[in-house]
Amino acid sequence: MERTYTLVISCPDRVGIVAKVSNFLAMYGGWITEASHHSDLMENWFFMRHEIRANSIPFSLAEFRSAFAPIAREFEMDWFISDSEEKKRLVLMASKESHCLVDLLHRWQSGELKCEIPCVISNHEDFRELVEWHGIEYHYVPVDKDNKQASFDQVEALVDAANADCIVLARYMQILPPNLCRKYNGRVINIHHSFLPSFAGAKPYHQAYERGVKLIGATCHYVTEVLDAGPIIDQDIQRVSHRHSIEDMVRLGKDVEKAVLARGLRWHIEDRVIVHANKTVVFN
Amino acid sequence: MERTYTLVISCPDRVGIVAKVSNFLAMYGGWITEASHHSDLMENWFFMRHEIRANSIPFSLAEFRSAFAPIAREFEMDWFISDSEEKKRLVLMASKESHCLVDLLHRWQSGELKCEIPCVISNHEDFRELVEWHGIEYHYVPVDKDNKQASFDQVEALVDAANADCIVLARYMQILPPNLCRKYNGRVINIHHSFLPSFAGAKPYHQAYERGVKLIGATCHYVTEVLDAGPIIDQDIQRVSHRHSIEDMVRLGKDVEKAVLARGLRWHIEDRVIVHANKTVVFN
Amino acid sequence: MERTYTLVISCPDRVGIVAKVSNFLAMYGGWITEASHHSDLMENWFFMRHEIRANSIPFSLAEFRSAFAPIAREFEMDWFISDSEEKKRLVLMASKESHCLVDLLHRWQSGELKCEIPCVISNHEDFRELVEWHGIEYHYVPVDKDNKQASFDQVEALVDAANADCIVLARYMQILPPNLCRKYNGRVINIHHSFLPSFAGAKPYHQAYERGVKLIGATCHYVTEVLDAGPIIDQDIQRVSHRHSIEDMVRLGKDVEKAVLARGLRWHIEDRVIVHANKTVVFN
Amino acid sequence: MERTYTLVISCPDRVGIVAKVSNFLAMYGGWITEASHHSDLMENWFFMRHEIRANSIPFSLAEFRSAFAPIAREFEMDWFISDSEEKKRLVLMASKESHCLVDLLHRWQSGELKCEIPCVISNHEDFRELVEWHGIEYHYVPVDKDNKQASFDQVEALVDAANADCIVLARYMQILPPNLCRKYNGRVINIHHSFLPSFAGAKPYHQAYERGVKLIGATCHYVTEVLDAGPIIDQDIQRVSHRHSIEDMVRLGKDVEKAVLARGLRWHIEDRVIVHANKTVVFN
Repeated sequence: MERTYTLVISCPDRVGIVAKVSNFLAMYGGWITEASHHSDLMENWFFMRHEIRANSIPFSLAEFRSAFAPIAREFEMDWFISDSEEKKRLVLMASKESHCLVDLLHRWQSGELKCEIPCVISNHEDFRELVEWHGIEYHYVPVDKDNKQASFDQVEALVDAANADCIVLARYMQILPPNLCRKYNGRVINIHHSFLPSFAGAKPYHQAYERGVKLIGATCHYVTEVLDAGPIIDQDIQRVSHRHSIEDMVRLGKDVEKAVLARGLRWHIEDRVIVHANKTVVFN
Repeated sequence: MERTYTLVISCPDRVGIVAKVSNFLAMYGGWITEASHHSDLMENWFFMRHEIRANSIPFSLAEFRSAFAPIAREFEMDWFISDSEEKKRLVLMASKESHCLVDLLHRWQSGELKCEIPCVISNHEDFRELVEWHGIEYHYVPVDKDNKQASFDQVEALVDAANADCIVLARYMQILPPNLCRKYNGRVINIHHSFLPSFAGAKPYHQAYERGVKLIGATCHYVTEVLDAGPIIDQDIQRVSHRHSIEDMVRLGKDVEKAVLARGLRWHIEDRVIVHANKTVVFN
Repeated sequence: MERTYTLVISCPDRVGIVAKVSNFLAMYGGWITEASHHSDLMENWFFMRHEIRANSIPFSLAEFRSAFAPIAREFEMDWFISDSEEKKRLVLMASKESHCLVDLLHRWQSGELKCEIPCVISNHEDFRELVEWHGIEYHYVPVDKDNKQASFDQVEALVDAANADCIVLARYMQILPPNLCRKYNGRVINIHHSFLPSFAGAKPYHQAYERGVKLIGATCHYVTEVLDAGPIIDQDIQRVSHRHSIEDMVRLGKDVEKAVLARGLRWHIEDRVIVHANKTVVFN
Repeated sequence: MERTYTLVISCPDRVGIVAKVSNFLAMYGGWITEASHHSDLMENWFFMRHEIRANSIPFSLAEFRSAFAPIAREFEMDWFISDSEEKKRLVLMASKESHCLVDLLHRWQSGELKCEIPCVISNHEDFRELVEWHGIEYHYVPVDKDNKQASFDQVEALVDAANADCIVLARYMQILPPNLCRKYNGRVINIHHSFLPSFAGAKPYHQAYERGVKLIGATCHYVTEVLDAGPIIDQDIQRVSHRHSIEDMVRLGKDVEKAVLARGLRWHIEDRVIVHANKTVVFN
């Protein structure tokens, strides 16, 4: 994997944005290996992502940022540039279901997910051996239902100490308190085990079974203060029939959950997801 | 296509049902070409469907019904037997969107859907030429919003006159009154343009666009008095992204709608769908 | 639908292409509503497609072409610009299977497919009434197996007389002669009823049944002189099982065929497909 | 999970098979929880699978076998009955790719796959730590290209010593010799990383990339002496586009491979797959 810089921009749409940005890049010899644009014609908003060969740019990212700042101001851009060699730091949180955790750990260990995992936090002890076998720190933070704030203060301290870029709720079955949701806005990713907005909240497979749907699904989304209502990154489904019990749905659903979470997380790590209003642009 | 009889049974589950029925069939030399069973272990209910070569049975359907009645009573069966040569009579209803109507008419004309279509009823004149070109009667029944009952009385009279087995709402954009829903209970099939229970009611693609979902869908279901809440026969989805406008979703959705309706309708026609509580068993 | 110009470019990849093109567009106030780029890192080739609001450009397409020519030469571009108001002219060819033809005619009639259909050519008389009902000319050109060249000379004359941009083989079951393939290179679209490269040639569903595959498919591709080996535009599949006979596969396959052909054709019409070597870039 | 017996039968089709079998079961009070039938009308062959509550049968499996033998002879049945408490013993074989192995080990460890895994055999040392962490024996059997027979003699001895019911080639990149294929006929399951029959043999993703297909796939099949030509249990696909490199295809393909292998293996373990000629009936 060649080292690349990723430049991500969103701003009000108007004539000349691409010209300005691509001129800037061309002027310094920037070799674009991947470029994605999107104009939201309803919102009149523009989104752009470039991957650039790092060694084609003659200066550092700090210098890039200084040089680019005037353009960003001119077009009122919300923007950043990231470096493929500075891997994002992900804190994983899990409870009693192992499938998403095992899946992410394997993708990380095999080098498929380019990230650091400084630690895993859980409200149970179940996965300590698994996580530590991967050489990752494990923090057991039980959640006392009469004093959740104390637990989440501890979670917050651990996340801060880990210098984390992102929290991944890999079937973590507690609801994050609003202050955490706000503090890590756009940086907490959850997998919900239904095809949202159907069956938000608890026991979605039971709800699906009761309704007699013929497809079950999973949704990877950013967490906001409103339960299961944040911007959706990805969704997928699995066909079911009258022959499937709730237990079958739970089992089949696991495969969809882990696939959708891994996909959404990969896109987040590669800076392919841009949140605007309560929706996402995903340059996958 | 060989002539077949289809025997459809549902009843409380217990030991010996299959033995009794298959003995009955074997005793008369009945050659089973397709057999499907389902035990609902939660509800303790049993479902069974057989296709039998008509010429392997030595008597008429009337005689079959008499001979089988004691077994049906013994096991408290809800049951019927149908004849592939007695085609179901379907009344199609449509409004302004032609895709489902054209699709069904072509499947009928090409012999894929084995049914009769005595007439099409619409609250608009738009499809008269299309329908009549297929050699099918067209009834224009406008719906006066201040006197819907009069319109639906007319619809009811037309359906009765057509001696219809089934009403198909092929994107018919009026809500059937409760008395019609009750009268044709289990015999009115609708296509809803969302993945129910998400986005019930009006303008589902607009709702989907607003929520930013990554999959849109369609649902074929039996109509009950509760809007978009009847037993689901089939569902399917189509992937969308930030690049798709509402208009794109409407366009892409049409293909899912017509596919799901055609599939669900085919299963209904072939007596593959059994409704129990508010769910379906589909022996497809 | 707003009037747009579509600018499609492919050329050897190097630094500065996007800057040059976007500067050119920005200089004249060109408002880009959709932009897609692709760098083929193996072939070192660059592909770009822009949709531009027609009324944002202050001159005609002829003037655009003159003004852009020097840039195109500098970067050795293979390029063109098209106008959404100059609809492509498609000649459809069919044989005995109606599903693709009916599907395309309906998409055209309902305004979904933005194209002209000057005529339909068939080696059978079967679809004359259907086609003429749509107000489209029908040409019956039987293919004499002992003198195919005469038949295809007639086909060629009809296509030329129709001033066609594209020939669509909508389950046309004759093989076009090499001279026609060459003459309309990149402008003849076929639907093959298998998931190529599996089951090329005749009776693919029979081949699929014999092999016991669990998925059947369809492939939309450009026609070249080598049978079923041209650049693939799109493919899709349908799940099957031991319960499906060859007849079932043929029936289920029809829905995949018509969906894949309609999708591929739409992309071709919208200038979203660029052929390079024997592969396609599809900016969908 | 309740204890069940699974009765699997295939035989020439004729009237009375179901009656005879279901009478036999009913006579002894056998409670059928799942029943599947299939008549292959082309081959005139009948397939049947029953799951029966173990505690509803008043005698042992040995007694069942004796009592049922006369019926089996009468109908020339190929048949067996298995006990959900006698778990199948699977030997896994792998080489350098870990995704299928990790996936199967997790499904086994979490109790999803009801089987024993006495050992893993590999021609590399890479996965020793992983496998042993799961508490499973690891055998390193290098394959000397100049003396493959010696290696496979060792494999055979290990499989025999493990008293294995089934060998699973979880991306094992060596070809089993014909004598092993014959010895374990119908009991060696492989995952091939293409949508067979496309791209059999080596480097299927490279072949897929070269051909420019728009879908890649994987195939789970029984191994026979003819490479990649055995009876197919399951297949699935993943959409790709011009943006995907060979490396991307390899990465995306892994998820399909492991899903298809796990599904096929589950069906095999649950005695849901019946091989007939070179095809499978899968009662899933």
